[in-house]
Amino acid sequence: MKRVVVIGGGTGVFNVLTGLKKYPFHLTAIVTVSDNGGSSGILREEFGVLPPGDVRRALVALSSSSTPLLAKLFNYRFKDGESLKGHSFGNLFLTALERITGDFSSAVKEAGRILGVKGEVIPVSLDKTRLFAELENGYLVVGETNIDVPKHDGNLKIKRVFLNPPAKANPEAIAAIKKADVIIIGPGDLYTSIVPNFLVRRIKQAIKSSSATKIYICNIMTKYGETTGFTARDFLTIIEKYLGKGVLDYFIVNKELPQSRYLKKYQKEQAQVVSFSPKDFVAELQHKKKPQIILANLLRQGKLLRHDPQKLAKVLAKIIEK
Amino acid sequence: MKRVVVIGGGTGVFNVLTGLKKYPFHLTAIVTVSDNGGSSGILREEFGVLPPGDVRRALVALSSSSTPLLAKLFNYRFKDGESLKGHSFGNLFLTALERITGDFSSAVKEAGRILGVKGEVIPVSLDKTRLFAELENGYLVVGETNIDVPKHDGNLKIKRVFLNPPAKANPEAIAAIKKADVIIIGPGDLYTSIVPNFLVRRIKQAIKSSSATKIYICNIMTKYGETTGFTARDFLTIIEKYLGKGVLDYFIVNKELPQSRYLKKYQKEQAQVVSFSPKDFVAELQHKKKPQIILANLLRQGKLLRHDPQKLAKVLAKIIEK
Repeated sequence: MKRVVVIGGGTGVFNVLTGLKKYPFHLTAIVTVSDNGGSSGILREEFGVLPPGDVRRALVALSSSSTPLLAKLFNYRFKDGESLKGHSFGNLFLTALERITGDFSSAVKEAGRILGVKGEVIPVSLDKTRLFAELENGYLVVGETNIDVPKHDGNLKIKRVFLNPPAKANPEAIAAIKKADVIIIGPGDLYTSIVPNFLVRRIKQAIKSSSATKIYICNIMTKYGETTGFTARDFLTIIEKYLGKGVLDYFIVNKELPQSRYLKKYQKEQAQVVSFSPKDFVAELQHKKKPQIILANLLRQGKLLRHDPQKLAKVLAKIIEK
Repeated sequence: MKRVVVIGGGTGVFNVLTGLKKYPFHLTAIVTVSDNGGSSGILREEFGVLPPGDVRRALVALSSSSTPLLAKLFNYRFKDGESLKGHSFGNLFLTALERITGDFSSAVKEAGRILGVKGEVIPVSLDKTRLFAELENGYLVVGETNIDVPKHDGNLKIKRVFLNPPAKANPEAIAAIKKADVIIIGPGDLYTSIVPNFLVRRIKQAIKSSSATKIYICNIMTKYGETTGFTARDFLTIIEKYLGKGVLDYFIVNKELPQSRYLKKYQKEQAQVVSFSPKDFVAELQHKKKPQIILANLLRQGKLLRHDPQKLAKVLAKIIEK
């Protein structure tokens, strides 16, 4: 069975896993643990645990169809109650499990067992760390949530991101990358869900030296403050900056346009459809240079413009089965 | 398979179920839902859900041995975190499940399925109600928690307890009582875990008209403010007051004395060993009157003086298997 490793965080990874789950691949999700917002942020602050949000989403994506209620429960967010409002039940589940088992890694494994997960979910690191972004004006933004929803001028470009304190790789993440036949990166928030994985020590090197086929999936929409005005070329450039040039084998870009009624909400948020210009990829399109570009209709039309898990999985499966 | 129904609440029912679980009986726990203290109280207040505490304990007692971690998780209480401190994880689990499934009864069933429960747990009522106690001086105490840990003079006797608003029986509780071969009542806090069940409409009548063998298990210790100074006779008298005379077939009383070192904590709480005087039970001991008295060594020596689940189950099994 082909071993597929998906690297990222948030709903991007969720959609990739949800789609690929139906294929006969061995799936491993490697997810970020530098979230500090919302329910994860509170638990991190008050309990000193690793932020469980990204792990939770990956677990739910891979959960067995025989436990639909447990998966629903895991994603349930308390809507009332002074003390519980906003908390995701799955986050509380992982927090309590971490307390009982004594460490986050065991907690994730046990949660996977309880949810009947098909495959594995591996936190990229077990170290407590924070994500910093340096803006083009030299300012530092601290914490994923402040990068994600900028309180600063979102038109300012991010110059670089880094983790502090530095984080060691989870040995299980390294092992999974080594054994992988295919590594899928993204989609997801570039600086808060994708790049943070490469900032963890030894991860970048493990990916580079792996013999796996490496795929990067470009986002559908830009995000204000993170990727304002980004084209597909810009996304690829940033990934290559952090991962190295010539590492990726495939670059998957959506070419399906959203219906205009779904774009209004995004316009308010100053987010646009990620554009693709063939002239930005002359060498790649002529196969003179890696990565190979794959343009496909990958959109799920809806209020939230995301990759359609089935469409995306179909394109991915073709590459994986090669 | 003999159908055994255990009626009560709190740790008393937990111990009975834990012991009986190893025998080939079909077990059903019918538990109180008038708790308003601690984690249950907060959830009740903030979410308007039924208080999950007693249901949770019964679920854990009957949970499958193949899910020890889930059972542990269910009983886990958050010890830190501004917002979560004191909350039992199992209570949050049941609250989230009630929100997802839409009602408490389904939530309890689903939780039972997830925990691999052997048998059933049935809330005695699905109505939201409060427990009131009228003291001998005419004062009213509102809420289980205020009766349980008295803020009033605990030497004042409780004249009567009642539910307001009145609560209808859960039809599943009535059905279970009707089908029962044996009904076990207690042990447990007399006025807050046992009697409240009889106050729910139709429950008392269902027990009385059932052809099941009926057993009441006397408490080991008195409780300040609830059963201050109570002897075994007093416990039986109160049960007969609420359930009717001649209903019980067996009255099980512990005769094993606690080691004195374990009594210090209880002395501080003004709680004593429940004493048994043969002269209080002349007719019963001569088999001229029901219930039949069974005196046995049932104690688990320890900081918390409780029934030993195995010793108690042995005595119960003898009656059930008759």
